[in-house]
Amino acid sequence: MAQRHLDPTDHVAGPAPTGDALADYLRGQATEFLRALRLHRENGAGANGSEGPVDAALALRRAARRISATLHTFQPLLDTDWSEGMRPELAWVSGTLAMEHAYTSRLERLLTALHRLSGTDPAAGSRADVAAGSRAAGAARVGAAPRDAGLRNPPPATQERGNLTVGAAKAGALLDRQLTLARTRAHSTALQAMGSSRFHAIADKVAVLASEVPLKPTAKTTDLRPLATAAHDRLTDAVTTLPLVTAGHPYNAAALIHGLSPDTVPHPQDAPWHQVRLLLRLHRYAREVVLGEPDGTSDLRLLAAGQALNQHRDASEAAAAAAQAARTPRIAPATAYALGVLHADQRHEVEAARFTFQQCWQKEAVTAR
Amino acid sequence: MAQRHLDPTDHVAGPAPTGDALADYLRGQATEFLRALRLHRENGAGANGSEGPVDAALALRRAARRISATLHTFQPLLDTDWSEGMRPELAWVSGTLAMEHAYTSRLERLLTALHRLSGTDPAAGSRADVAAGSRAAGAARVGAAPRDAGLRNPPPATQERGNLTVGAAKAGALLDRQLTLARTRAHSTALQAMGSSRFHAIADKVAVLASEVPLKPTAKTTDLRPLATAAHDRLTDAVTTLPLVTAGHPYNAAALIHGLSPDTVPHPQDAPWHQVRLLLRLHRYAREVVLGEPDGTSDLRLLAAGQALNQHRDASEAAAAAAQAARTPRIAPATAYALGVLHADQRHEVEAARFTFQQCWQKEAVTAR
Repeated sequence: MAQRHLDPTDHVAGPAPTGDALADYLRGQATEFLRALRLHRENGAGANGSEGPVDAALALRRAARRISATLHTFQPLLDTDWSEGMRPELAWVSGTLAMEHAYTSRLERLLTALHRLSGTDPAAGSRADVAAGSRAAGAARVGAAPRDAGLRNPPPATQERGNLTVGAAKAGALLDRQLTLARTRAHSTALQAMGSSRFHAIADKVAVLASEVPLKPTAKTTDLRPLATAAHDRLTDAVTTLPLVTAGHPYNAAALIHGLSPDTVPHPQDAPWHQVRLLLRLHRYAREVVLGEPDGTSDLRLLAAGQALNQHRDASEAAAAAAQAARTPRIAPATAYALGVLHADQRHEVEAARFTFQQCWQKEAVTAR
Repeated sequence: MAQRHLDPTDHVAGPAPTGDALADYLRGQATEFLRALRLHRENGAGANGSEGPVDAALALRRAARRISATLHTFQPLLDTDWSEGMRPELAWVSGTLAMEHAYTSRLERLLTALHRLSGTDPAAGSRADVAAGSRAAGAARVGAAPRDAGLRNPPPATQERGNLTVGAAKAGALLDRQLTLARTRAHSTALQAMGSSRFHAIADKVAVLASEVPLKPTAKTTDLRPLATAAHDRLTDAVTTLPLVTAGHPYNAAALIHGLSPDTVPHPQDAPWHQVRLLLRLHRYAREVVLGEPDGTSDLRLLAAGQALNQHRDASEAAAAAAQAARTPRIAPATAYALGVLHADQRHEVEAARFTFQQCWQKEAVTAR
């Protein structure tokens, strides 16, 4: 039932999309990649506080993900050696560039949660930060665009974050220290990566792709839709393995099971959800190719389902970071207690994200009936 | 809307219930009180492991609560001095007898939750306990009748509780120590209370009530329903002050707000819910009087709403106990972390109970429309 509504082949009127549509899409994404790269190089040397590098890095990752996914889904239509050589390289680019952003948003998420749990106003902290010339900490709600995920000029660690209570304040300071360190390292790694010959080789290949897509000779007359449908079927198959009945029952407390087990960080129960997140993204990009919609915003429910799975991933990783921080030697019991509350809070968010996904998915099914 | 369905006056066919029905109800509850007291005295000196004292104490509290509530709701029909003198004494009896049971079930709830959070089997622990001649710890699910809440022969503290992981095991042992101590003290207090001249005076008054209810002269011809309706209105008025819109939105995360604030144990946000719990009980007992149903089980939704509020109270107090235990000096960080997770888990249960109550209440409203 969900299949029918999500299936991209339902939406195509007129002639079947073939290799030409695939080539158009890949050329477009390659152009985006190059544009973002140019923007990044121009802005990277610019003044501090510039948001250019952030946007450029996001755009780079966005294009790299789409090219890589498209090579995967439509591989039978493309030169095999070329696409098999290209995909891991693009995955390396988007993965390497994603880390700094991931640590930044994880820290934001955890500090925002700590403020909520303390009943304090995160904006108070951020106003103080701004006054002190530091970055606005905790002011961005979860899901808001981070302001310091660029590859250059990482902001200094924030010292003050409103009037957090003692345990929460220490937990916040500990997380800040650990995640800022991780972010700084990720920043250096990304800078090194972008200056490497490996990266230049990839950029060169993408530059070629922007003008010439290595289609197989048969591709021009091959219908893309069966391959898109296969991507969709992989998604729906994976969704059937999820515990959606449980997820649809609010407050099932499933996400915290094994929460105190020492050998379950990250949680094995999260893995199938992470897998569905990736398959949903592949499906969404395949839809963009077939429908000729590079924005991919035509199905809002699909976007909502994807956002729920992003939240799931973010909360899962934030919970793991809190658990990890609690293992720091010689922390005070009050700090450990606050980290325990925070961990459970984020596992609660994991459960909430599953519920949201279940609701989205169910709506798809009902609509399509 | 909810009013209409819950209103006891809707259900009465035939002549209006008057003071006679009130007198019947009070005589019946006084007889129950005396029966339970006799049972308690007979069984109290009996062999250990007897469940008599538990049942007898529950029955005593049950009758004391109903008599007290009825004196409150229908006070205009009763001798003022007598009922004003009687109510605080009955509240003292039920309150004193409730403490041991409360500590027992709180410990069971927390240990069951710790096992769930550790992914361990609580039955494994309880089987070991039984083999060791100790009580079955954690085997009873939350809400199951406790087996050791009698006033005599409190069981020894349980040493082993399955294979809890280190932090969880230490947290469990700490809670066990603290709540078992509190229970033992409550046990002694209850024993002393039941041997006191104050208790004997109350028992004497209840014995008189079992044969002669001090109605005012006008009571015989007074319709009980307006007083029952007033009790009902106090309930519905209090419900309107609850944040039911938030509560009806799953995973609103409201119950954990201020969870790390040091001066909010117990949580002030829980107070209006506790108040509604008491008012719902008064309404339910008033219904028993007016409808002549001493069991009070005719409205299953009302029972379900009441059970949700009981869960709310229990989870709220369990969360506070976990927070309190975390303040024990010189505990290990791993213990504090486990207590933090446990605290948040129980606040999550608080939120879940509010959701359940909202659903029950909404169903009432929809049905009555």
